[in-house]
Amino acid sequence: MAKSPEDFMRQAIALSAHKMEAGFGGPFAAIIVKGDEIVAQGFNRVTSANDPTAHAEIVAIREACQELGSFSLEGCEIYSSCEPCPMCLAAVYWARLDKIYYANTRLDAAEIGFDDDHLYREISKKIEARVLPMVRIDLPEARAVFRQWQDKPDKVMY
Amino acid sequence: MAKSPEDFMRQAIALSAHKMEAGFGGPFAAIIVKGDEIVAQGFNRVTSANDPTAHAEIVAIREACQELGSFSLEGCEIYSSCEPCPMCLAAVYWARLDKIYYANTRLDAAEIGFDDDHLYREISKKIEARVLPMVRIDLPEARAVFRQWQDKPDKVMY
Repeated sequence: MAKSPEDFMRQAIALSAHKMEAGFGGPFAAIIVKGDEIVAQGFNRVTSANDPTAHAEIVAIREACQELGSFSLEGCEIYSSCEPCPMCLAAVYWARLDKIYYANTRLDAAEIGFDDDHLYREISKKIEARVLPMVRIDLPEARAVFRQWQDKPDKVMY
Repeated sequence: MAKSPEDFMRQAIALSAHKMEAGFGGPFAAIIVKGDEIVAQGFNRVTSANDPTAHAEIVAIREACQELGSFSLEGCEIYSSCEPCPMCLAAVYWARLDKIYYANTRLDAAEIGFDDDHLYREISKKIEARVLPMVRIDLPEARAVFRQWQDKPDKVMY
């Protein structure tokens, strides 16, 4: 019997509970699905793996790409137990996933100490208005490398 | 003799050129520095590693965290050959880096086919206004897991 979106989401939520209890990291998990098949699962392991990028969605995307042997997940959908943070949302775009399903929201996350909402506001600001200092070092060598990329005959676009 | 920010940036740019020529991925590299010492380097390997999250900054952050045995890079700075995309910018916040130096801008990147600027605009939009479909599945189980996290006595915050 075909699984419903609610079925996949319940599975993601159960994974988030299980791995959080086991001490891997925050209460987040994600599942990537192609058609009716689960391609990959991921759960937060920031603190256990010493990897601040090891959010559930990033882990699931990396694993799905290895599974499919491609840097594109076109044709796949992701189920995340929580609305993705800006890092994970941008990763979903880069991975070309078709659709995001999510359960908890960024405001639910803020209530338990994960201030994704603050991060959304920061990223939407102009560079000079952010709390994080960003300094441009304008070197012509950098633009030269970009021109080399444009002229590179065997480049693989992504 | 102490290295200047320009010295570190030139090193990041040289790395981006070298690895792009070698076919690892797009023309981007990043270096993470603590004091006067390079902790980690990263370069884009999206297409060669089949990993859409393998941007220079993400790779450098992951490696620096392994090197230092911590999920926090407080006290470190990152030199990126290009202004970080939203995924990498959010990763810099999660990693608690002190400062970003960058050379090329998002508009330079757009000119050679990397539309980070579009991604910045998408992420700043309300969920329902984005080109990527996002559907909420509101399940009480999800919020229950968040409450379990709040009550977990031995949780490690990040």
